[in-house]
Amino acid sequence: LRQGFPEVIFCPGKTTEQIVQIAQRMADTTANVLATRTTPEVFAALSEVFPDAEYHELAKAVVVNRDQTDCGRGKVLVVAAGTADLPVAEEAALTVEVMGSRVERLYDVGVAGIHRLFDNHDKLMSANVLVVVAGMEGALASVVGGLVDKPIIAVPTSVGYGANFGGLSALLTMLNSCATGVSVVNIDNGFGGGYSAALINRVQLEE
Amino acid sequence: LRQGFPEVIFCPGKTTEQIVQIAQRMADTTANVLATRTTPEVFAALSEVFPDAEYHELAKAVVVNRDQTDCGRGKVLVVAAGTADLPVAEEAALTVEVMGSRVERLYDVGVAGIHRLFDNHDKLMSANVLVVVAGMEGALASVVGGLVDKPIIAVPTSVGYGANFGGLSALLTMLNSCATGVSVVNIDNGFGGGYSAALINRVQLEE
Amino acid sequence: LRQGFPEVIFCPGKTTEQIVQIAQRMADTTANVLATRTTPEVFAALSEVFPDAEYHELAKAVVVNRDQTDCGRGKVLVVAAGTADLPVAEEAALTVEVMGSRVERLYDVGVAGIHRLFDNHDKLMSANVLVVVAGMEGALASVVGGLVDKPIIAVPTSVGYGANFGGLSALLTMLNSCATGVSVVNIDNGFGGGYSAALINRVQLEE
Amino acid sequence: LRQGFPEVIFCPGKTTEQIVQIAQRMADTTANVLATRTTPEVFAALSEVFPDAEYHELAKAVVVNRDQTDCGRGKVLVVAAGTADLPVAEEAALTVEVMGSRVERLYDVGVAGIHRLFDNHDKLMSANVLVVVAGMEGALASVVGGLVDKPIIAVPTSVGYGANFGGLSALLTMLNSCATGVSVVNIDNGFGGGYSAALINRVQLEE
Amino acid sequence: LRQGFPEVIFCPGKTTEQIVQIAQRMADTTANVLATRTTPEVFAALSEVFPDAEYHELAKAVVVNRDQTDCGRGKVLVVAAGTADLPVAEEAALTVEVMGSRVERLYDVGVAGIHRLFDNHDKLMSANVLVVVAGMEGALASVVGGLVDKPIIAVPTSVGYGANFGGLSALLTMLNSCATGVSVVNIDNGFGGGYSAALINRVQLEE
Amino acid sequence: LRQGFPEVIFCPGKTTEQIVQIAQRMADTTANVLATRTTPEVFAALSEVFPDAEYHELAKAVVVNRDQTDCGRGKVLVVAAGTADLPVAEEAALTVEVMGSRVERLYDVGVAGIHRLFDNHDKLMSANVLVVVAGMEGALASVVGGLVDKPIIAVPTSVGYGANFGGLSALLTMLNSCATGVSVVNIDNGFGGGYSAALINRVQLEE
Amino acid sequence: LRQGFPEVIFCPGKTTEQIVQIAQRMADTTANVLATRTTPEVFAALSEVFPDAEYHELAKAVVVNRDQTDCGRGKVLVVAAGTADLPVAEEAALTVEVMGSRVERLYDVGVAGIHRLFDNHDKLMSANVLVVVAGMEGALASVVGGLVDKPIIAVPTSVGYGANFGGLSALLTMLNSCATGVSVVNIDNGFGGGYSAALINRVQLEE
Amino acid sequence: LRQGFPEVIFCPGKTTEQIVQIAQRMADTTANVLATRTTPEVFAALSEVFPDAEYHELAKAVVVNRDQTDCGRGKVLVVAAGTADLPVAEEAALTVEVMGSRVERLYDVGVAGIHRLFDNHDKLMSANVLVVVAGMEGALASVVGGLVDKPIIAVPTSVGYGANFGGLSALLTMLNSCATGVSVVNIDNGFGGGYSAALINRVQLEE
Ligand SMILES: Nc1ncnc2c1ncn2[C@@H]1O[C@H](COP(=O)(O)O)[C@@H](O)[C@H]1O
Ligand SMILES: Nc1ncnc2c1ncn2[C@@H]1O[C@H](COP(=O)(O)O)[C@@H](O)[C@H]1O
Ligand SMILES: Nc1ncnc2c1ncn2[C@@H]1O[C@H](COP(=O)(O)O)[C@@H](O)[C@H]1O
Ligand SMILES: Nc1ncnc2c1ncn2[C@@H]1O[C@H](COP(=O)(O)O)[C@@H](O)[C@H]1O
Ligand SMILES: [Mg+2]
Ligand SMILES: [Mg+2]
Ligand SMILES: [Mg+2]
Ligand SMILES: [Mg+2]
Ligand SMILES: [Mg+2]
Ligand SMILES: [Mg+2]
Ligand SMILES: [Mg+2]
Ligand SMILES: [Mg+2]
Repeated sequence: LRQGFPEVIFCPGKTTEQIVQIAQRMADTTANVLATRTTPEVFAALSEVFPDAEYHELAKAVVVNRDQTDCGRGKVLVVAAGTADLPVAEEAALTVEVMGSRVERLYDVGVAGIHRLFDNHDKLMSANVLVVVAGMEGALASVVGGLVDKPIIAVPTSVGYGANFGGLSALLTMLNSCATGVSVVNIDNGFGGGYSAALINRVQLEE
Repeated sequence: LRQGFPEVIFCPGKTTEQIVQIAQRMADTTANVLATRTTPEVFAALSEVFPDAEYHELAKAVVVNRDQTDCGRGKVLVVAAGTADLPVAEEAALTVEVMGSRVERLYDVGVAGIHRLFDNHDKLMSANVLVVVAGMEGALASVVGGLVDKPIIAVPTSVGYGANFGGLSALLTMLNSCATGVSVVNIDNGFGGGYSAALINRVQLEE
Repeated sequence: LRQGFPEVIFCPGKTTEQIVQIAQRMADTTANVLATRTTPEVFAALSEVFPDAEYHELAKAVVVNRDQTDCGRGKVLVVAAGTADLPVAEEAALTVEVMGSRVERLYDVGVAGIHRLFDNHDKLMSANVLVVVAGMEGALASVVGGLVDKPIIAVPTSVGYGANFGGLSALLTMLNSCATGVSVVNIDNGFGGGYSAALINRVQLEE
Repeated sequence: LRQGFPEVIFCPGKTTEQIVQIAQRMADTTANVLATRTTPEVFAALSEVFPDAEYHELAKAVVVNRDQTDCGRGKVLVVAAGTADLPVAEEAALTVEVMGSRVERLYDVGVAGIHRLFDNHDKLMSANVLVVVAGMEGALASVVGGLVDKPIIAVPTSVGYGANFGGLSALLTMLNSCATGVSVVNIDNGFGGGYSAALINRVQLEE
Repeated sequence: LRQGFPEVIFCPGKTTEQIVQIAQRMADTTANVLATRTTPEVFAALSEVFPDAEYHELAKAVVVNRDQTDCGRGKVLVVAAGTADLPVAEEAALTVEVMGSRVERLYDVGVAGIHRLFDNHDKLMSANVLVVVAGMEGALASVVGGLVDKPIIAVPTSVGYGANFGGLSALLTMLNSCATGVSVVNIDNGFGGGYSAALINRVQLEE
Repeated sequence: LRQGFPEVIFCPGKTTEQIVQIAQRMADTTANVLATRTTPEVFAALSEVFPDAEYHELAKAVVVNRDQTDCGRGKVLVVAAGTADLPVAEEAALTVEVMGSRVERLYDVGVAGIHRLFDNHDKLMSANVLVVVAGMEGALASVVGGLVDKPIIAVPTSVGYGANFGGLSALLTMLNSCATGVSVVNIDNGFGGGYSAALINRVQLEE
Repeated sequence: LRQGFPEVIFCPGKTTEQIVQIAQRMADTTANVLATRTTPEVFAALSEVFPDAEYHELAKAVVVNRDQTDCGRGKVLVVAAGTADLPVAEEAALTVEVMGSRVERLYDVGVAGIHRLFDNHDKLMSANVLVVVAGMEGALASVVGGLVDKPIIAVPTSVGYGANFGGLSALLTMLNSCATGVSVVNIDNGFGGGYSAALINRVQLEE
Repeated sequence: LRQGFPEVIFCPGKTTEQIVQIAQRMADTTANVLATRTTPEVFAALSEVFPDAEYHELAKAVVVNRDQTDCGRGKVLVVAAGTADLPVAEEAALTVEVMGSRVERLYDVGVAGIHRLFDNHDKLMSANVLVVVAGMEGALASVVGGLVDKPIIAVPTSVGYGANFGGLSALLTMLNSCATGVSVVNIDNGFGGGYSAALINRVQLEE
């Protein structure tokens, strides 16, 4: 196993039994554990293996965060557009934490009210890496990308309806961003966004 | 024919002969004429019917603008993101003019350099109706929509490549805009954007 | 906040708690409130904050309509094709009202029985702006667009099945309309259609 | 071979040699021949095999129409929306003729100017079967379908651009038509539309 | 109303109340009634208006079949590929009946066991019009189309999974059929298939 | 390198120089060579490296077939629907040959004239593995799959137009085939179809 | 019926009654039976017809495996990427068994931890035919295809979310595989993958 | 302008004149310049403004690389699957260089011959950030992602045909990658991949 990285369980499509089995295999060798897209029932079962596990309701994630060494250099900032994007944003933020990086949150700064975003200019500028989470048309990634000179991981969400086609709209927006320094992960993949951001923040110390 | 409206010829799929025939039928009853998506060859042929016709190279449009009465109330502002979007933006602007409305242009204000857009805050605020033209991820419509309280017609362009899928990316962005007051026309349809905008600007006097 | 505009809450993806919190923040500064895509449960909770709130079952909307000043110039006409399109049409009509414009309704005039539409020629002609709501193949927008010289906001609905692909069919129809003056909002976005229409109707007085 | 039916050659993807070979195999056993989507060069080569062949430039079709017996009962009416749809409409009309049915044409009756369609009410009513050819949003099929009680074969064309996606828009419109009695063939398939219509018109005598 | 045609109610998206209201409006002027995609509950309510209504469980249709005059010339044959296609096939067959045409059924003749289809050669040949219902890859329409010289209405069904994309696979197959005389209606639209077939069978007597 | 397998060069996206370089690297170690989707110019250049190379015009392939040992057990039959499918079918057949298997061809047996297919029943039954090549609706794979009990590799082609969407129609048909024993390769991938078939035919001797 | 082949019932879209009826028709003539995508309830009903039937919970399949003659030559190896792919993998494995071939399983060898795959090099090399089951990006098929010289049937699964679009991602990956010898069946079609593999393994003895 | 960043001109959709104008505006304030997707003609024109410009034929890029300060911490490794992916890979590599980072190249390591990739294990491990460029099924990103613990920017290319749908296949593969630490840019966007990678490599020194 890779030293200093958390173990991660993606729960959909697995029975509670299978999840507990996987967890037990991890129990000896691992400090931090993250189980994503899970339920209170799975949390209860995991608590038997990891008594110090915590359940984050909004993110639907179980976190065991034993090793809290700061492995990153700067801060990762998670930026989110609307209230309905928060579960994905929180999944990203928790992932950054179990990866051993400091995280800050900047929520509810969608482009329809762009002044709230600009009011937080300093927060944007002080981050080392940014995760930008947005659904509907996903324009936030381009606007933030135009403001900062740091790497941005854009996470499209499935928030929206109709011609949003389950997140396709925000995904295409982010892939076609006219701003530089923006790369993209799968729709609703808060975990992937947080993981890449923490990895970027982390290599800076490892070298 | 509807009083005070220009005659319009959409040229693709028509032979020069067919276009001239249509023009001749218009010659007596019409003041203003617009032929879109056309060529210098067609312009030459149309000049025989309308000696005062003009060819606009960037927009690939032929315009006969005899009746220059101001039929609108305020100004229509055509906003465009990048250099490659200008043909569509110009088609929109010319359409507004032959429809008898005053037009202003605000070009090269893509969201990757959002300060240029904000430097033109007054221009944005002084328009009665706006046409926003953008390709790639099309985020400009949402940002402008968040700033102004006037109706916006968003025109997605096919500018871009790859996962832009011929303009689909900008189209979906605009349809899913989190800003209010934004409605959308077909990809690259500068004519449609200008027409709707002029119509909106116009009814205000007619009532 | 923009003077004279209602506050709007889009409810999907928000808990009742979050909705009530947002409502409370609005309570002091706002006259009119619209909560869309909501439930009787949310209505009950909102009634504690706004005792004069009303629930519109068909539109699934909560409306607080305190300031009833007429901010528009003419009438907005909401035209709908079939019975199953009425929830979206009503969302549009209610939005027009809380935006302070007079609204008229013309329902059940789908193109399969086009004579019913023509029997209402006067109603169509007397509107200042039109919202056309249709699902299945969405042809109604083109037919109305061919009859009137006023701006039309077309709202495709997801009504239909099979190759309607959740409203894509009506959306594409409306975007490709051969009639002029038609612009389009997202599938099932009655709110967006009503908002744009009211905005168009409104600017005519503000200038 | 089926008695009384023309031989048909679909030319794309075949060399002139292959086309002539196929034609020669037909020469003895066949009265009527139709070669579609072809060129003047192929016509020249086919003329050697069939000296009485004719080339229809608009439809890009070669026709040998020896047996002109009327095999149908009533008339087939081919209705087309715009000038750019005529090649497909003519392919349909020629197909009806080589199938031995009488054909009438009603062109340039798109729904944006619906009065021209209604002015031809009698023509519409007197047809036994109708072929409706339209591109862009393809709404014509629904409007005609609402007016007549006869079978309609709808032919979507690829005329248009942007969100028309090569004819997909008109195809979906026609498949989702709210009018009854409308069935659909492939995009630009004038031949298929004419063939089905003639077949319908023909069985009425055969029984 | 058009003489001799049944009244049809498409039930999805309508409340029982709305359906009963529509039914009551029909009660006086109509002989035959068809309500499609409905439930036993709606049937119970409709029985109060039409005591002689019958519920067809497989097709989920309510039928009032008072006028049983034979309005067609020959027989309509409904051909279906697999067991799971029967609800759509039965909707088509019932529609043919309430339209006043004789109907025959040929079920369970999918192309994977093509000999069963060929064993019924006579039945195929004796039909005046055919409705071919198939899901999965929908190849049956092409095979039947190659065997008979009569008009075929192909009805793709959503039966299947994965890359069948809710019936898209069978729909595209049928639209691209290499057999002549095949036209297509919407996915799962048994009603539309039966209606067009009966209309074709019917005009033969009317002329 | 894997003993007894040909070297294959897929030419699109490579310069003649790059192709020749690759060929030269192969020259010593390889008996059989296949260059696909290539041109007479590339053939000329390759002839300098392999003087015994042959150019197959229909398949646009260069073949060096030195080792003609029969490595297969039975025959591979390549079945093709129409004339326009022959380039893909020939690419498949040549691939089978350079892989050291005997190949037979059965062309022009599309399902619209299904009797020609049945007239070749013995040929179908005598094959050990089959490659079925078809465009348009691709129904041939299902029909052949229903007749034989041997593995079938289905190759969809891009032959067709409109709603065939560049071969998507035939691809989906073949993936959804109701016949058993059918697996599928990429659109127009004659090489892949021939390779898999020869591999299947070959392992039978190797064990 | 084809000698030595099992009877298969695909259960979705069929009532328990219909399934039992089909089973009863098979009861006399058939040794092995497979019912896929079924439930414990259907199993209970089938047990009355086939008292020796077994229910495989993970695969949701009922199996009657009376004739256990080895009809294959070598082993079929079923390779699966992740835990969530196991239902499809097991459907494949059971199908191979009722087809009379020996099967081996190699599970949990996704490419993210590619060393586990390489640790099983001998198992991969000893198979006669391989079935590779993978969801998400489906890269496993290409990697295995690059390692072995045997035919591979790739089975994409719908495991994943977002831009996986119900299995489309893995399907396209497998169809575009740069490895040779890979052919593909429908998304989640474990049955089809196992059937083709067993057929390939089987013909080797029959010749 | 952002200190130490190159100026970039994306050339498609711009005339040579417009490009030269943009270049002249840059001439005074900028050290490094990159013009992408351009031609020898544009290079000739740019050489007048920047006499030290160089043209990179494979990447179709013009580079002015005056400031060669090493602004990065480690090396960026550009990994490419096949020969046809090299233009995109080279665009990425050149971008890394003008951004002031050291770049290494590892080409022709597609997963079909996975041993070549493993032979370069040390090169993979010694990179600080990786850009992985692949077309067809794009599986390379997942395999590399499984091997290294560094951030990966995946660049899908449009190399391929058929069901590759212009790069969609590789794009979806990369977005759905089961490996962690992979984020994605637009199809063929070598510039974007190189830019993000250099930014990641660079921030490590800036903090
Ligand atoms: N660039 C354009 N894009 C879309 N529609 C256009 C354009 N220019 C003109 N039109 C429309 O095409 C109509 C003329 O079509 P036609 O009768 O085919 O010449 C006009 O009335 C407009 O509605
Ligand atoms: N039915 C609706 N469809 C689309 N957008 C809506 C709808 N109702 C409200 N909105 C938009 O959602 C905004 C409120 O979003 P939120 O802040 O998430 O509640 C409003 O200002 C509108 O822009
Ligand atoms: N899981 C499955 N997925 C796809 N096809 C299946 C599956 N199981 C069985 N089949 C096919 O369905 C046929 C039986 O279909 P049916 O006659 O509708 O029961 C079998 O012969 C197989 O071709
Ligand atoms: N090959 C490329 N693909 C995508 N974007 C590019 C490419 N080259 C340059 N760009 C972007 O295009 C911007 C310049 O765009 P423009 O102002 O239109 O020249 C650069 O700052 C980059 O963000
Ligand atoms: Mg930036
Ligand atoms: Mg606004
Ligand atoms: Mg109009
Ligand atoms: Mg009708
Ligand atoms: Mg036929
Ligand atoms: Mg078979
Ligand atoms: Mg292989
Ligand atoms: Mg990794």
